[in-house]
Amino acid sequence: MGHNTKINVGIFGASGYTGFEAVRLVKGHPAMRLCFATSESAAGKTLSDIYPVSWAIPLISAAEASLSEVEAVFCCLPHAASMPTVIAAREAGVRVIDLSADFRLTDVEVYRKWYQVPHQAPELLAEAVYGLTELNRTQISETDLLANPGCYPTSILLAVAPLLESDLLDPAAPMIADSKSGVSGAGRKPSLKTHFVEANENISPYNLGQSHRHVAEMVQVIELLGGDGGNLIFSPHLVPVSRGMLATVYVSLAKDVSSTTLHELFLDYYDDKPLVRVLPSGQVATMAHTQRTNLCVISVTPVNARQLILCASLDNLGKGAAGQAVQNFNIMFGLEEVAGLV
Amino acid sequence: MGHNTKINVGIFGASGYTGFEAVRLVKGHPAMRLCFATSESAAGKTLSDIYPVSWAIPLISAAEASLSEVEAVFCCLPHAASMPTVIAAREAGVRVIDLSADFRLTDVEVYRKWYQVPHQAPELLAEAVYGLTELNRTQISETDLLANPGCYPTSILLAVAPLLESDLLDPAAPMIADSKSGVSGAGRKPSLKTHFVEANENISPYNLGQSHRHVAEMVQVIELLGGDGGNLIFSPHLVPVSRGMLATVYVSLAKDVSSTTLHELFLDYYDDKPLVRVLPSGQVATMAHTQRTNLCVISVTPVNARQLILCASLDNLGKGAAGQAVQNFNIMFGLEEVAGLV
Amino acid sequence: MGHNTKINVGIFGASGYTGFEAVRLVKGHPAMRLCFATSESAAGKTLSDIYPVSWAIPLISAAEASLSEVEAVFCCLPHAASMPTVIAAREAGVRVIDLSADFRLTDVEVYRKWYQVPHQAPELLAEAVYGLTELNRTQISETDLLANPGCYPTSILLAVAPLLESDLLDPAAPMIADSKSGVSGAGRKPSLKTHFVEANENISPYNLGQSHRHVAEMVQVIELLGGDGGNLIFSPHLVPVSRGMLATVYVSLAKDVSSTTLHELFLDYYDDKPLVRVLPSGQVATMAHTQRTNLCVISVTPVNARQLILCASLDNLGKGAAGQAVQNFNIMFGLEEVAGLV
Amino acid sequence: MGHNTKINVGIFGASGYTGFEAVRLVKGHPAMRLCFATSESAAGKTLSDIYPVSWAIPLISAAEASLSEVEAVFCCLPHAASMPTVIAAREAGVRVIDLSADFRLTDVEVYRKWYQVPHQAPELLAEAVYGLTELNRTQISETDLLANPGCYPTSILLAVAPLLESDLLDPAAPMIADSKSGVSGAGRKPSLKTHFVEANENISPYNLGQSHRHVAEMVQVIELLGGDGGNLIFSPHLVPVSRGMLATVYVSLAKDVSSTTLHELFLDYYDDKPLVRVLPSGQVATMAHTQRTNLCVISVTPVNARQLILCASLDNLGKGAAGQAVQNFNIMFGLEEVAGLV
Repeated sequence: MGHNTKINVGIFGASGYTGFEAVRLVKGHPAMRLCFATSESAAGKTLSDIYPVSWAIPLISAAEASLSEVEAVFCCLPHAASMPTVIAAREAGVRVIDLSADFRLTDVEVYRKWYQVPHQAPELLAEAVYGLTELNRTQISETDLLANPGCYPTSILLAVAPLLESDLLDPAAPMIADSKSGVSGAGRKPSLKTHFVEANENISPYNLGQSHRHVAEMVQVIELLGGDGGNLIFSPHLVPVSRGMLATVYVSLAKDVSSTTLHELFLDYYDDKPLVRVLPSGQVATMAHTQRTNLCVISVTPVNARQLILCASLDNLGKGAAGQAVQNFNIMFGLEEVAGLV
Repeated sequence: MGHNTKINVGIFGASGYTGFEAVRLVKGHPAMRLCFATSESAAGKTLSDIYPVSWAIPLISAAEASLSEVEAVFCCLPHAASMPTVIAAREAGVRVIDLSADFRLTDVEVYRKWYQVPHQAPELLAEAVYGLTELNRTQISETDLLANPGCYPTSILLAVAPLLESDLLDPAAPMIADSKSGVSGAGRKPSLKTHFVEANENISPYNLGQSHRHVAEMVQVIELLGGDGGNLIFSPHLVPVSRGMLATVYVSLAKDVSSTTLHELFLDYYDDKPLVRVLPSGQVATMAHTQRTNLCVISVTPVNARQLILCASLDNLGKGAAGQAVQNFNIMFGLEEVAGLV
Repeated sequence: MGHNTKINVGIFGASGYTGFEAVRLVKGHPAMRLCFATSESAAGKTLSDIYPVSWAIPLISAAEASLSEVEAVFCCLPHAASMPTVIAAREAGVRVIDLSADFRLTDVEVYRKWYQVPHQAPELLAEAVYGLTELNRTQISETDLLANPGCYPTSILLAVAPLLESDLLDPAAPMIADSKSGVSGAGRKPSLKTHFVEANENISPYNLGQSHRHVAEMVQVIELLGGDGGNLIFSPHLVPVSRGMLATVYVSLAKDVSSTTLHELFLDYYDDKPLVRVLPSGQVATMAHTQRTNLCVISVTPVNARQLILCASLDNLGKGAAGQAVQNFNIMFGLEEVAGLV
Repeated sequence: MGHNTKINVGIFGASGYTGFEAVRLVKGHPAMRLCFATSESAAGKTLSDIYPVSWAIPLISAAEASLSEVEAVFCCLPHAASMPTVIAAREAGVRVIDLSADFRLTDVEVYRKWYQVPHQAPELLAEAVYGLTELNRTQISETDLLANPGCYPTSILLAVAPLLESDLLDPAAPMIADSKSGVSGAGRKPSLKTHFVEANENISPYNLGQSHRHVAEMVQVIELLGGDGGNLIFSPHLVPVSRGMLATVYVSLAKDVSSTTLHELFLDYYDDKPLVRVLPSGQVATMAHTQRTNLCVISVTPVNARQLILCASLDNLGKGAAGQAVQNFNIMFGLEEVAGLV
């Protein structure tokens, strides 16, 4: 650790939306010092050249980054591109919080199937911990390689985890997640899909059913929690907001459960988890509950004694990405879980 | 067509979004002449005083409207407020297209339960026809009292009707409709919910499960088609677009059906229905497919042999309200179904 | 002319926003038949492959277009790229409505200065007519090469033309046009500037003062009308709407003029011009006045006896591009000016 | 003062957008303790009942507020409604930051003319200080009654102050401010103007010229700085963003000034003012530069040696309201100017 007890960190991939949000959080964090920020497309510029901020933080290419200066790095690179950087960081003894999908899946064949490339570091998978913070605190505190979850999985898994762990779900019924994501979730690289005129005044479903890559990590966690991953039906929708995510999740229960019992189950489950908030009975989570925060807000709405609707809201760049990354960093380094996040 | 063959019509409630859209369609219709347009809040003004248009169409109070001048009226009034006007029009021998909920439900007790007021004209319910055009063409052509469906029911029922009529749905499984509606669906009366700052950059679920009033008319139609209305789970969401509606509907099939068979079922069902379009296999309906049109566009996406996702898109003021009203008018008066609509 | 008196036309550059709007207008026009539509990026596809419409209109490459089939073409290509196509069409005896900047400027040196390429067809400039319809009707009716104005110039010039022609402007004072443009004005090609997340919730001025290319054609017209083009200060702003343009224009008068006189000047000037509407005194033009129309709506708001604010609203794809192109076509072919436009 | 040297404060009118932003800033401020928050419309509820936050801050009616507990209050009430509260607070010896217009104008007749009510406390006007922080630091540090400026005046006056103080403006030329404001500037009370469907996809000019109430305070400051207030032409526009303000200001210089000199003038003027940032030459201020910050960002773009375009960006709820209020509080109480603001 540097003087004043600050921890030196680096950020790979700082020019994308997630990387930029990581910079924002690291800058404001009481116990981190930002040593470098990389960007291949903007190397040689500063962040103020590519975002409307005054932060004269230099962007360097990854090749110039000095791993020996830092104790930890945040990798905000695309999948596949992240692996070499993670390997190098781990070889240098640097702890890694990887925001890509590269270390989320424990099975290399599953990885190859969904991401269409072979895994380059199967040996590191053994030490990687899936950083859905509220489910894995102990493991997270001990790992040197944290695989930060996707935004869709974070919202959906936090919504269903209390039911899975209580073994309350009907094992024969589909678990349907109808998700709505703000456009920043699609990244900063221009495309027709993210063109203002195409996304504005529109709602677009895409990769419906079991075809979106995030299905893989959700299935993995659902099965770890004793559920049947094959029951998951996942429908992402692109919606005309800049930041925000809302999952509306429909589940069937294995037996009749009263609305009070269900609500208390959720309150108890998240009672000691400071970045998840369960709404009072009768309220419904909206995107506005969490925008520009690092929270996940969940509402529990029974339809009848066997059918339940869960709404989970988070900011796709906050609890859905950089916020959860910092939350995991805090746990890895023995800091207060919410340091720099509220 | 010469002026002698035009049909004289009136519009009650012309200052709301639905009424204004009705005016727009009637103005451009080849076989209608607009004789009056009413508005209690703007009586004495013209439409150009309350909308950014140049149409100097006078708005009068309903009390001033001369029913003897017209052959048909469009009632674009709120529920309960519509009944007295419909009664008066029918007494005057005028054919009615009522866009409120007042004549959609066949059971007065069901009406009272959902709308919290007694029905004032149970005797008229017997002659009222539910105007989901694609399902009821023959009855519509003969009725003098057309109950135009709600926007949510139109999108959802058109998505599931081919499956219900083919008896393909699993009778024990929920039918889940996750709907997204533009803000004009909430009416023009200012409210906190429709305030720009509250609705912008937000997605808000509301009345989840079986609590929205439109559940009643959907249950009625589902049961008429042989389904179990109790299976319906309906989740409306307010989304930050001005016009547009998208329903993502999740259904379970009673037996394995191939994706080709399913797609052909939909193509066949809507083959002769000019205002419903089934997308080619592999495409997904978005709001942009139907905005500012009078179409409903449906996509069919199998998850597996038993699970199916239907997306139905329409403009809430078009096929979801005034467009379908004119479509029904065309059928009632023996005109081409799409006159004035494409 | 083909049978039924329809005029055969072709569209070059049909896949961009302006070209697509031209297709929409041509399809709905009572006296045009669309013979071909070209797109280099989407040749071999149909319009329904690249837009959410069902129009199975094939897109071909420009090289495949048969000029011998058509009487007129709309060129919706980028500047510089338009010239060869226009040359070829004119050589084939086809009348041209060119929506690019290539034939708007009468001086090839001015063209070279602003567009950084030499002009390829100076000999055609002599026959080209600048198609600001309301100012040039007679010349337009006789030309075979129509240079359709830019969207910004159309709004600003229509706002100031009555004052310039009446010689009412203070020759020593700046004429300031603060313009707001919807994002479709920036084209459909993805870029960071038009990325949803960058444009949404933002207002961005750009090319302020006398640096935007549209300054050149405005200066040319202002000077033709007897004004001093050097007085023009033009500030375009990108605003988060899909379609629409609003110019707020500030002018100083050479002498005291009453508000009544000014308003009547505008009413008289546009009295016989069906696609320009002058608002009643006291009203102000907004974008909503003209969206998805082919109108320009102008308001006249005196600050005092010498200072005046004009607001001019149009749809950048309507009166600002394809709408005016069709209006000019109508005049070139002796049709009713508003055919297919209202 | 309480322990830990925190200063006890109260907020009147905490349920509106400005009041809510004041609560947010006070909560996060290192040296303030919030003792009460009032709302007449939501008294008895908590902030979490009316905003999507978890802050269980009780809202009380103003009559219940205990002035004896606090050292300072923020009054976020509408004009006219603010006066009695300010009077009561001053009588109780409490220092006041008033965000209404009630104490901005030094002349009671001017106040009456623009606000259509008589001033109730002319005697307090003598002690009131206009809190445009960058211009009035010394007076602000000594006052007990701070009149916080309007959002439009803050942006426009910060843009022109360096020129006025340097006596560089042409005294005979208009000073034109074309301003664009996000919808939160119109308040949280629902109205047709702020209805999502009316404001979305629209730009609306209003109160053009010299008719908006904010003209009065701008004229007052311009004249204090030696300018001619009658030269001001002000055109506010409502734009479809939730938060943000951009003023594009057009001025004429009295003599030729080089662009370097102008840029340095602005850099020097704001060199020691931490919440105003002058952009590097060649860059232009956009709304995105300041959203959700407490900064004003200014760009300087010469058109030629005599004409200049200034763009000033701020968040209407930040530097345009509650942010500047806290900045002024900091100076009044001898704290660091940016405490709680960056």
